[in-house]
Amino acid sequence: MKRATIKDVAQATGYSIATVSLVINNKPVSIPRTTRDSILKAAEALHYRPNQLAVSMITKRSKVLGLIIPDNSNEFFAELSKSIERAARRAGYGLIYGNSANDSQRDLAYMRMFADRQVDGIILARSAALLYGDDEKSAAYMQESAIPFITVDRAVPGSGAASVSADHFRGGYIATRHLLELGHRRIGAYTGPSDVASSNERLAGYRAALTEAGVPFCEEFVVEGNYQLGGERRALTKFLNQRVSAVFSFNDLMAFGLYREMRAAHLSVPGDLSIVGFDNVFFGDLVDPPLTTVSQPVDEMGACVVRTLLELIEHHTLGQEQQHQVFPPRLVVRGSTAPYREKEV
Amino acid sequence: MKRATIKDVAQATGYSIATVSLVINNKPVSIPRTTRDSILKAAEALHYRPNQLAVSMITKRSKVLGLIIPDNSNEFFAELSKSIERAARRAGYGLIYGNSANDSQRDLAYMRMFADRQVDGIILARSAALLYGDDEKSAAYMQESAIPFITVDRAVPGSGAASVSADHFRGGYIATRHLLELGHRRIGAYTGPSDVASSNERLAGYRAALTEAGVPFCEEFVVEGNYQLGGERRALTKFLNQRVSAVFSFNDLMAFGLYREMRAAHLSVPGDLSIVGFDNVFFGDLVDPPLTTVSQPVDEMGACVVRTLLELIEHHTLGQEQQHQVFPPRLVVRGSTAPYREKEV
Repeated sequence: MKRATIKDVAQATGYSIATVSLVINNKPVSIPRTTRDSILKAAEALHYRPNQLAVSMITKRSKVLGLIIPDNSNEFFAELSKSIERAARRAGYGLIYGNSANDSQRDLAYMRMFADRQVDGIILARSAALLYGDDEKSAAYMQESAIPFITVDRAVPGSGAASVSADHFRGGYIATRHLLELGHRRIGAYTGPSDVASSNERLAGYRAALTEAGVPFCEEFVVEGNYQLGGERRALTKFLNQRVSAVFSFNDLMAFGLYREMRAAHLSVPGDLSIVGFDNVFFGDLVDPPLTTVSQPVDEMGACVVRTLLELIEHHTLGQEQQHQVFPPRLVVRGSTAPYREKEV
Repeated sequence: MKRATIKDVAQATGYSIATVSLVINNKPVSIPRTTRDSILKAAEALHYRPNQLAVSMITKRSKVLGLIIPDNSNEFFAELSKSIERAARRAGYGLIYGNSANDSQRDLAYMRMFADRQVDGIILARSAALLYGDDEKSAAYMQESAIPFITVDRAVPGSGAASVSADHFRGGYIATRHLLELGHRRIGAYTGPSDVASSNERLAGYRAALTEAGVPFCEEFVVEGNYQLGGERRALTKFLNQRVSAVFSFNDLMAFGLYREMRAAHLSVPGDLSIVGFDNVFFGDLVDPPLTTVSQPVDEMGACVVRTLLELIEHHTLGQEQQHQVFPPRLVVRGSTAPYREKEV
C-alpha cells in the first residue's frame, strides 16, 4: 500500500497543503477547531504517518545532508569528506557522517538511520567488501526511498542514482603509461576488490596502456587487494616471485603498506621496485621517498557532489549530463618511480 | 518559561504518561476520541511542543549516538572514532559523526544538529582552535540541554560533563624521560594550542621529567603548534637555532611534518634529531624511521566512553569515579630516537 502523504490528506479534506502541514505538525498558530478536527480525522482515516522529509519540503528543509563513507582511516575519504563538508557549508547545509567500515550491511543501516534523522539528501561512497545480495538491497532502497541520493567515487549498479567520480580508467591508464615510459615491462597491478567498479575501471586502464605499448597482459602480475592495509606482505611476495620491476597500487594506502614490507625485506623504493599509488593523499608527500601517484580532484568532486544533490533536492530531476559526472585525474610524479635498470644476477 | 513536557500534559489531564505519549505521537492505536481531544487540548493550552528525546525516554530510544571530532584527517581521531563505533554497535547503537574541522563555533552547531536529529547522547572531542567565548557557550549548552554529554580526549571546562582521556601528564612525562635517559639535555617541546587542556598537561609532564632529572626548563625550547600540519618548517627552524638534540612532538601528525622538513634540509632522524610523537597512529609504523611515540589506549577509551554514556542515558547519573576516567599511556620505542652524541663542530 502506498504511504499516505500530506497531499492525500489535503485532497481528502479540501484544505491547502500548507494548512494540513500546520495542523499535523501541531504548529502554534490559530486555526479553527473544526478545520483542525477535520484534518486530523482524515489523517487518521488515511493512516497518515508524518514523513518529516515531506513536511520539510513544504515548510522548511532540515538543511542537513548525510554522508556514508567506507573507511575513515583512509585519508582519501577524509579529504573527500572535508571537501563535501566545505561545499555543503557554503550552501548553508550541515553534514553528518556515517562510517560503514567496509561492511555493506552498514551502508543500508546508515541510509535508514539518516532517513530517520530527516536529512534532506544522502551521499553514498559504498563499502568495498560486498556481501552477496547487499548491493541489490541498497539499490532497491535508494530507488524506493523518497530521499534524494547521490553516489561518489563508487557507484551502486542498478540504483539509478546520480554519480560523481574520477575517471578511473584514465587514472589506471596514465599510471601504467608512466611506468612503461620509464622502461618497465613487467608491471604488477595491486588492485581493489573485484566487485568495486573503480577497481575494474583502473584495471581496464592498466590493460589498455599495456596493449598500446605492445606489452602482453599477464594474469600472474595482478594481485587482488581490498583497498586497505593488511594484504601487502602476501602481495609483495607474489610480485617479487614474478620478478616485476614496478607495481601500480590501486590506492595510496596499500602503496604505504608495500613501502613497509620493502623496508622489512631490506629492499629499496624505487631502486628495487618502482611504485605508483592512486589518490594523492597528503601522506604521500611525507613518506620517504615521496610517492608518485594519481591525483583525484577531490575539491572539484566534493563541490560537484553537493551542487548536484542540491539540484535534486530542489528540482527532483537532473539533466542527462548531470547523471554521471566524471573528473579527469592527473599524474603526480615524485620519488617512488625510476627508470628500469637490468638487475645484476 | 519552562518548556511543557508530556508529564505536564499528563498531570493536567489525569491520563497516564503512556497514553499522552500515544496520542501526541499520533500512534495508530485505538484511543477514545474524548480522551484524545482532551489531551490535545491540554497540550495546546500548555504550548506543548514534542520533545522527541523525552518521548523516546518513555516509548523507545532512538538508539543513535552523535560524535563530534575536531579533525578527521588526524588518524588519532579516525581510530578513536572507530573504537567508539565498535563499542556502540556492540551495545546496539548506531553512531553518526560531525567533523568540526577545529572550528569551535561548529562544535556548538553540531551539538544542536545532533539534538535536532534526536540522538540519545553526544560524545564531544572539542576543537583545538578556540574563539573567545565559544567554550563558555558550549559549556552552557551542555549544561542546559536535556541530552547526556560526555567528552573524550579534550574536556570542556565548566561544562560539568563526564570525561574520558589518556593521562596526558603521564604521557608527557614518559616521552621526556625516555629522551633524558638517552642522554639528551636540550629537548624541544612542539606543543598543541595553549588553550587545550591535553597540551598543557603534556607540557606539565615534560617539565616534571626535566625537573626530576635536574635539567632546567627553558622557555626557548618550547614552540606552540596547533596539532595540525603546516607549522613544522617554522618550528624546526626554531629548534635548530636553539641547537636542541631531540624534540617531543605533542602529536604524531606534527612529528610527520618534522620528518618532511628534516628530509628537505638533508638532515637525519634520529642522527641529527631524535623525535618522539604522541598518539601511536598506524602511520608511525609506516614512515622511515618508524616513529617512537606515546600510545593512547584508544580501544579501552572508546569502550569506556560508550559504557559511561549509556550509563548516563539509562540512569541520568554517574558514580563519582566515573566522572573523570583517565587511562595510562605507554611508550612505544621505535627508530626515531637514539642516544645523544656530541656534534663535531
